Amino acid sequence: MKRRAFIQKAIPAVLATGFLASCRKEESGAPAIVTQPHIEWRLASSFPRSLDTLYGAAEVFCKRLAEMTENRFRIRPYPAGELVPGLQVLDAVQQGTVHVGQTAGYYYTGKHPALAFETTVPFGLTMRQQIAWLTQAGGLGLIGEVLSDFNIIPFYAGGTGAQMGGWFRREVNDLKTLKGLKMRIPALGGEIMSQMGVNVQLLAGSDVYMALERDAIDATEWVGPYDDEKLGFYKVAKNYYYPGWWEPGASLSLYVNQKAWQQLPSSYQAAFNAANAEAALYMLSKYDEQNPAALTRLLAHGVNLRRFPDDLMAEAERHAVAIMEERAAKEASYAKVYAQWKKFRAESFQWFDIAEQSYQAFAFRQRS
Amino acid sequence: MKRRAFIQKAIPAVLATGFLASCRKEESGAPAIVTQPHIEWRLASSFPRSLDTLYGAAEVFCKRLAEMTENRFRIRPYPAGELVPGLQVLDAVQQGTVHVGQTAGYYYTGKHPALAFETTVPFGLTMRQQIAWLTQAGGLGLIGEVLSDFNIIPFYAGGTGAQMGGWFRREVNDLKTLKGLKMRIPALGGEIMSQMGVNVQLLAGSDVYMALERDAIDATEWVGPYDDEKLGFYKVAKNYYYPGWWEPGASLSLYVNQKAWQQLPSSYQAAFNAANAEAALYMLSKYDEQNPAALTRLLAHGVNLRRFPDDLMAEAERHAVAIMEERAAKEASYAKVYAQWKKFRAESFQWFDIAEQSYQAFAFRQRS
Repeated sequence: MKRRAFIQKAIPAVLATGFLASCRKEESGAPAIVTQPHIEWRLASSFPRSLDTLYGAAEVFCKRLAEMTENRFRIRPYPAGELVPGLQVLDAVQQGTVHVGQTAGYYYTGKHPALAFETTVPFGLTMRQQIAWLTQAGGLGLIGEVLSDFNIIPFYAGGTGAQMGGWFRREVNDLKTLKGLKMRIPALGGEIMSQMGVNVQLLAGSDVYMALERDAIDATEWVGPYDDEKLGFYKVAKNYYYPGWWEPGASLSLYVNQKAWQQLPSSYQAAFNAANAEAALYMLSKYDEQNPAALTRLLAHGVNLRRFPDDLMAEAERHAVAIMEERAAKEASYAKVYAQWKKFRAESFQWFDIAEQSYQAFAFRQRS
Repeated sequence: MKRRAFIQKAIPAVLATGFLASCRKEESGAPAIVTQPHIEWRLASSFPRSLDTLYGAAEVFCKRLAEMTENRFRIRPYPAGELVPGLQVLDAVQQGTVHVGQTAGYYYTGKHPALAFETTVPFGLTMRQQIAWLTQAGGLGLIGEVLSDFNIIPFYAGGTGAQMGGWFRREVNDLKTLKGLKMRIPALGGEIMSQMGVNVQLLAGSDVYMALERDAIDATEWVGPYDDEKLGFYKVAKNYYYPGWWEPGASLSLYVNQKAWQQLPSSYQAAFNAANAEAALYMLSKYDEQNPAALTRLLAHGVNLRRFPDDLMAEAERHAVAIMEERAAKEASYAKVYAQWKKFRAESFQWFDIAEQSYQAFAFRQRS
C-alpha cells in the first residue's frame, strides 16, 4: 500500500502506464523520457478556405507540427473572418489575440510602405529570386526590423509564382484603351493603373464576379488559372491577359507574436521552422502542379490568352520606379530596404537572364 | 528504504530528477511526459565538402532534425568517400550500410534508366517544374516504384537550378566546331555530345582543372557560377557557355533504407520530412543567392558569356528525344515513367511559357 500510494502521488494516473512502459524500454536501451510542454496556439489566416492552396498550406503547416511533436505543440488554423477579418491579421498578432497569422506584408503598406517588398512589388523579383532574397540575402532581416515595432517576427511561408494579368471583357491593345477602363485591382498595381488612366475599383473578392457579369467593371485581376477558374471569370470575360507584372513573385508570410515566440522551447522553434518550410514548399509546388492543368481547361472553354503590349508594360514600369524612388526619398526606413533590394535585383536579374531564361526561352519555344 | 529501492528499480538514476520535475509540472498543468527513442543514423553523401551548397544542405538537414527532437533522432552526415564512394551511395543504402544517402538518381541509370527523371534530363523540366512533378504530380511515386526493388524510399532534397553549359577554351560557333572537341561531360549530356561528334572524356572532378589547364581537354562542364568559380576554370578557359541544356533543373534526393524507415516512430518520420523540406529550400535559395554575385565576380575576371547556337541546341534536343523514345520502346518500366513525365512536361511548358516566361523576358530585358 505504501508503494502504491507513492506512485499515485508522484504520477498522475493517466500517465503511469506509459511511464512504466517507457522505463522498461529504457532499461533495455531504447527510448528516453523527455519533457515537453503542451502548447496550443491559434493561427488567423488572411485567406478564405476557397483559396485552398493558400489556406491549405496553413493546414499542412499545423498538421505537420502536431505530427512532429506528437500533438504537444498544436496550432489551430482559422480562415479569414472566423477570428479576425482577413486584413487585420497583423493587428491581431501584434496584440496577441492570436499567436500566428498567415498573411501577406503588402496588405499593411499603410502601416509601413516597405512591407510591400516582403510580398512582391510591380516589376520586382521572380518567385525564386524573392525566396532567395527573403531567406538568404537578408530580406527577412530587414523586414523583421520593420515588424519589430509591431512585436512581430516574420517567416517566409510559400508563394503563388508569377500571377496572371486578369480578365478583360474587351481587348487592351495600347495605353489608350486603358483610359477610363473600370478595373478591380488593389495595392501598388492599382496605383500604377490609376496613374495610367484606369478607373480603379475596390471590391471585396466575393463581389467581383457579379460586378464583372453586370458590366459594373470591365476587368479584374485575381491570381492565376487554378484560383481564377474556380471563380468562373471565364464565363463573363474571355480575354485573359498576362503577365501580372504587379505580382511577379508573390510570397506569403507567417507572422508570429514576439513574446509568444520567445516562450517556445528551442526544439519547438525548430519544429515550427521546419513545418513552415514544408508548407511553403507545398504551396508553390501545388500551384505549379495545378496551374498547368487549369490553363488547359480554361483554353478548352474558349479563353483567349493575350499578352500585355510592351509599351503598356514599359510605361507601367516607369510609374513603378517613380513611386518607389519617391518613397525612398521621403522615408529613411523605406530607403534602407529599397536600396538593398534594388542591388539584389540587379545582380539577380543578370544571372537569371543567362542560364534560366535562355533555357526556358529555347525549350518552351520548341514546344510550339 | 523501500520507496527508494522502488524508484531506483523503476527509474534509471540519470532520469529520476527529470521525471519527478516533470511530474510536478504536469500537476500544475504544463508539460507532459512522452517517450521517444534515441536513434542514431548515418548519412552518406555523393558530394564532397567543397560543394558546400550541396553537402551543406545535408548538414542543415541533420542539424535541424537534432534540434527538433532534442538530440533524440540524430543523423551524422559523411561527405563522399568517407564511408562509401560518392557513386555507391545507392548500394550502401540498399544494403543498410548507411540508413540515408544524399545523392542524385541519374548516377544510377545503369541500375534503371528511369532514375534519370528523378534528377533531370536534357531538355527536361525547369527547377520549379521538377519540384512540382516530383512532390505533387506523382513523380516521386513512380520513382519510388523503381527504387522499391532496391529497398529504398526517395525524397526530393533540393536542387541547383538551371546549370551552365561549361568552360570552353575556344568558341563554339556551330555544330561543326563540336567535331573532335575533347570535353568532360558525364551522363546523358555526354551521350548526346558524343552523338554530335564530341570526344567525350570521363574525369573525376578533382582532375578536371589540370586537364583543362594542360590542354588535355578543350572544355568541361561543372555546375554554375558559384561552384565553378571555386575550381578556378575561368583562369584557363575564358568562354563560359549557357544554358546547360542537359541539366535544366537538377534535383537531389535523400534515399532512405525501407526497413530503417518503417522502424521510425511516425513523429520521427514527420520530423524527417520537415527537416528535409527546410534543407531543400535552403539548397536552392542558397544557390539563387550565391550565383548572381559569383557571376558578377567572374565577369570582372574577363569571362566571356556565350550562348550555345540555336541549331546546336535543336540538334541536341533531337538526339535527346530519340534516346528517350528508344528506351521507352525497349523497356516497359521506363516507358511508364516517361509517358507520365512527358504529359506533365507538355502542360507545364504551356503554362510556364505564359506568365513566368513573358514576365522574365520583359523584366530582364529592361535591365540591359
